[in-house]
Amino acid sequence: ESISDPNFPGVLTGLEKVANTRGYGVLIGNTEGDVAVEEKYLRFLSTGMADGLILLTGHLPLAGWPENSKSLIPPTVAAATPIEHADISYVCTDDQSAARVATEYLMSLGHRRIVYVAGPKGSILSERRLKGYCDALAQSSEPMSIWKVDGDGTSLGGRAAVERLFIRDTLPTAFFCFNDNTAIGVIGALQDRGYDVPRDMSVLGFDDIPFASNITPSLTTIRQPRSQIGEYAMTALLDRLASREIPIETWELHGDLIVRNSCAGVKP
Amino acid sequence: ESISDPNFPGVLTGLEKVANTRGYGVLIGNTEGDVAVEEKYLRFLSTGMADGLILLTGHLPLAGWPENSKSLIPPTVAAATPIEHADISYVCTDDQSAARVATEYLMSLGHRRIVYVAGPKGSILSERRLKGYCDALAQSSEPMSIWKVDGDGTSLGGRAAVERLFIRDTLPTAFFCFNDNTAIGVIGALQDRGYDVPRDMSVLGFDDIPFASNITPSLTTIRQPRSQIGEYAMTALLDRLASREIPIETWELHGDLIVRNSCAGVKP
Repeated sequence: ESISDPNFPGVLTGLEKVANTRGYGVLIGNTEGDVAVEEKYLRFLSTGMADGLILLTGHLPLAGWPENSKSLIPPTVAAATPIEHADISYVCTDDQSAARVATEYLMSLGHRRIVYVAGPKGSILSERRLKGYCDALAQSSEPMSIWKVDGDGTSLGGRAAVERLFIRDTLPTAFFCFNDNTAIGVIGALQDRGYDVPRDMSVLGFDDIPFASNITPSLTTIRQPRSQIGEYAMTALLDRLASREIPIETWELHGDLIVRNSCAGVKP
Repeated sequence: ESISDPNFPGVLTGLEKVANTRGYGVLIGNTEGDVAVEEKYLRFLSTGMADGLILLTGHLPLAGWPENSKSLIPPTVAAATPIEHADISYVCTDDQSAARVATEYLMSLGHRRIVYVAGPKGSILSERRLKGYCDALAQSSEPMSIWKVDGDGTSLGGRAAVERLFIRDTLPTAFFCFNDNTAIGVIGALQDRGYDVPRDMSVLGFDDIPFASNITPSLTTIRQPRSQIGEYAMTALLDRLASREIPIETWELHGDLIVRNSCAGVKP
């Protein structure tokens, strides 16, 4: 949603790579989720300034595009955050499968009390990852509780989630976090309380931002194929510009589990 | 230079704040320092698409703007990275003073072997910070060596700098780093070698990126007034749009030293 999203530069790299090859340029408008700002950019677009539109916002602008405004909008593809149930092509990570694989990995290490630290309220990406987490739990031979705490996608939100958990009697043995920023906050808060990660508790992220390999312990996480997402999205858009006959396409790209040092076997 | 610069979102926030207030929008072109891409954006601009230009690249496009192309360029202000010795307004952090204050702080803790881990080759910001470091050393009553090692502004570059230093017999007691990314790499490499920061060695950064308070130890650094830089730059640009009579202005804003936990007194 915002230019400060650590996934954005990678997606942009992919968008630019394909656009440059095919003679297009990429201009960026930062909406920060502000509907008024979105409308302002759409008015720019309606002057014919742009040939096409890549949306990373996760929602259609103009509150669902009433028919009378639809003609103002150039061909559009959603990237990184899918826009589901809309007549639009999108390219994103297969969040649900990746989150399932991540949770299964924690289960394979013996963890049975795994908490999911969610993303911002209403985040479709957080919902998709929660589904994958639930898919993994459902396969367990022993009963496991679906355990979700609120977060907000920032490291401060991860810290706050840990503080709230520690009011309880029962603690998790592992944290599966909505994203790496959250995971970094979780690790920091656990370390501040004297816990060793991963000896005492395991923490797993999502994104593989550049810092993930540089924190201590280095972060086990899901790598989003950011550049590939950008490349596919721009290709889909430019193909659509070349021919309006192209059907709506959706791509959900595989996200690899990157095993580093923030997860370990559950303490006996 | 790049949208992935961790200072960029803060500067953009300031740019947008002022632009929105005064009825303008902000569009972003990411050049990654590529001259061909810069020229492409300038061709966009020459169609009258933009009223003004804010440059964060640190250099003028079109290899110095020959007279015959100057008319194509809208009013321009440089932000975050100054463009010196050119007929252009700019707003940035007072890097030299801030770097001097940072180095003086390390000296006040008793450090006499302070190494400066530089930024990317040719970076004007790195040169400005080096000057401040030298200013501080020059005030010392005991002789101190100007000691500079190469970096590249990334945490990997910081790690590489530490690896190179450890080939030597003499080690520093403190690192003053071009930026926080570099400092995070330096801290990681020192920790990997079994050193405790700050007990064994101190590390000081520059920028105060959001992660600076979240790493262990939390990073002592200089805070760049990013949002303020953006606000001043956009104000200067819009004033210039309102009246071409406005003289060239340069602002160098104060950067605060933020003392956290990565620096300590030199070991006896």
